[in-house]
Amino acid sequence: MIKVAVNGYGTIGKRVADAVAAQPDMEVVGVSKTSVSAEAYVANERGYPLYIADLANKPAFDAAGIKVAGDVDAMLKIADIIVDATPGGVGAKNKSIYESLGKKAIFQGGEKHEVAGLSFNAHANYKDAIGKQFTRIVSCNTTGLIRVIHALDQAFGVERVRAVMIRRGADPSDVKRGPVDAIVLNPATIPSHHGPDVLTVLPHINIVTLAMIVPTTFMHMHSIQMDLKKEATREAVLKVFEDHSRIGIVRKDTGIKSNAQLREYTQDLGRPRTDLWENGIFEESVSVLNGKEFYCFQAIHQEADVVPENIDCIRAMMETVKDPEESIQMTNKALGFVAIG
Amino acid sequence: MIKVAVNGYGTIGKRVADAVAAQPDMEVVGVSKTSVSAEAYVANERGYPLYIADLANKPAFDAAGIKVAGDVDAMLKIADIIVDATPGGVGAKNKSIYESLGKKAIFQGGEKHEVAGLSFNAHANYKDAIGKQFTRIVSCNTTGLIRVIHALDQAFGVERVRAVMIRRGADPSDVKRGPVDAIVLNPATIPSHHGPDVLTVLPHINIVTLAMIVPTTFMHMHSIQMDLKKEATREAVLKVFEDHSRIGIVRKDTGIKSNAQLREYTQDLGRPRTDLWENGIFEESVSVLNGKEFYCFQAIHQEADVVPENIDCIRAMMETVKDPEESIQMTNKALGFVAIG
Repeated sequence: MIKVAVNGYGTIGKRVADAVAAQPDMEVVGVSKTSVSAEAYVANERGYPLYIADLANKPAFDAAGIKVAGDVDAMLKIADIIVDATPGGVGAKNKSIYESLGKKAIFQGGEKHEVAGLSFNAHANYKDAIGKQFTRIVSCNTTGLIRVIHALDQAFGVERVRAVMIRRGADPSDVKRGPVDAIVLNPATIPSHHGPDVLTVLPHINIVTLAMIVPTTFMHMHSIQMDLKKEATREAVLKVFEDHSRIGIVRKDTGIKSNAQLREYTQDLGRPRTDLWENGIFEESVSVLNGKEFYCFQAIHQEADVVPENIDCIRAMMETVKDPEESIQMTNKALGFVAIG
Repeated sequence: MIKVAVNGYGTIGKRVADAVAAQPDMEVVGVSKTSVSAEAYVANERGYPLYIADLANKPAFDAAGIKVAGDVDAMLKIADIIVDATPGGVGAKNKSIYESLGKKAIFQGGEKHEVAGLSFNAHANYKDAIGKQFTRIVSCNTTGLIRVIHALDQAFGVERVRAVMIRRGADPSDVKRGPVDAIVLNPATIPSHHGPDVLTVLPHINIVTLAMIVPTTFMHMHSIQMDLKKEATREAVLKVFEDHSRIGIVRKDTGIKSNAQLREYTQDLGRPRTDLWENGIFEESVSVLNGKEFYCFQAIHQEADVVPENIDCIRAMMETVKDPEESIQMTNKALGFVAIG
């Protein structure tokens, strides 16, 4: 059993912890919080040993009736590998701690590529992570882009990618962020950081991305255009997506034409926290014009799509599974993937 | 003085009426409403003779203290030209009335191209409308696209256009529409109707458009990519925009990066109803990559950008001004255009 510590039990960390706990070959040896919060109660409820950043705060946890197992240092020492899901930029500061303890660690997309030196996507470069000490999981949007670009690049070759990301303004529980009634250029300059971030995993792709933020809370929406190298048909493209283990097709017959309706659907399917781990590609939108011009809309659940990538990355770094698809299938099965369309 | 009747005193009609009243060569002979509303009070307040669809409703207007000049038929008879700003589809039904009275009429983008047989944009095809009985002003989004495409086509030639429109969910006072927390594919299929609508004015352009609706009320945001025929520089493109009489540059130095901040700015500039009649192109976003790939973001005020187009169209159809730029300058001056950036 791989002993996994989740440093930072927030939006991503709590999902990774549950995903680790669901795997047959891993266990959660601890999760961490800095202060008393609803998520600290959830950690206790789930039975994950809860470690805190500073034991001086233990009285506050005690007063709240939350059990504390020790400090973060103690947690790191008993782990084989750490998933660092702390806020963006904090991971970079934690790296020296992991180094001094000789521990493996996975950072999230909020950290720069250079922090780990290797950016990861299970379908694109699993094998590069085998045995590595540090790896970074690219962000939710980049993960969503890489899945679809890599899949079409393998099948038809990708000449160039032009993608526009409509990003959610805040996570559902994030009551301090906006906007409320605005479309915010994010950034106003072109390109956005997503294109360069794709290159950390797929360096040969010609890609330009643009991004805006809108007043929604659940899932980003991508408008993607690619010029393919070989001629393709809509049917052939759909077949590639259907065969992909982390792409879900949102069937036309469902009548779903928005992220909100898709969330209702993942909820009805019984997904934990209504999570959409796959790319949600809208069947109706899949188009091939002029033989080589591919278009689609896809929904990317910002809180969820990187979760299975973290799990596969653990196996690659721990060298327990060498074949990418074997790990992906294990992960998907343990999470209980049910076809979304 | 050209006698103009505005049939349908709503979101567009009330703005067109004010724009007509501001011109030195036109007057508003009447505006119409079907029922008592805030806008009917505004018509009285502005001093526009108010005509109503059915005189049987006059007692309701009387009871509300709103002066009524007569029925719509009487208004149409005293007009030289009618701006039909009735809800989409109603204009097509009104056409036979205008025909039987031998009147000229301008329809809005909610009507099909075939209703008028000519779709209009002042910069692109003013001269085609000279002397015509019927013309249609293309919709707000299409107007915004045509301005920028035509300008770059004249300067550099346009090989192909790929544009993504992020549309406002509802007008500010439209309390019955949504969405509240969703990104809605509009439509989920590709292309959206905007590309084909551009072809009604610029038939030689290779264009594909995609559209989504988001929970905002003020202005659409366009993400535009064009492959140009000739090499261009960012500076040369900015010069084309600066020289265009209906394109405004949102300067980087203003710090404006969203429609909401742009609205605050048009408000501070003293624009009536905070209207942005021009395309609002964000200076920071104007990019030329690889010599021929143009990118930009632009804000399009859905309630306003077609208003000056209606004014120019009146002059072309009435044959009082034959030169497009002369009419455009008259219109802009009368409206009191102040550089937005």
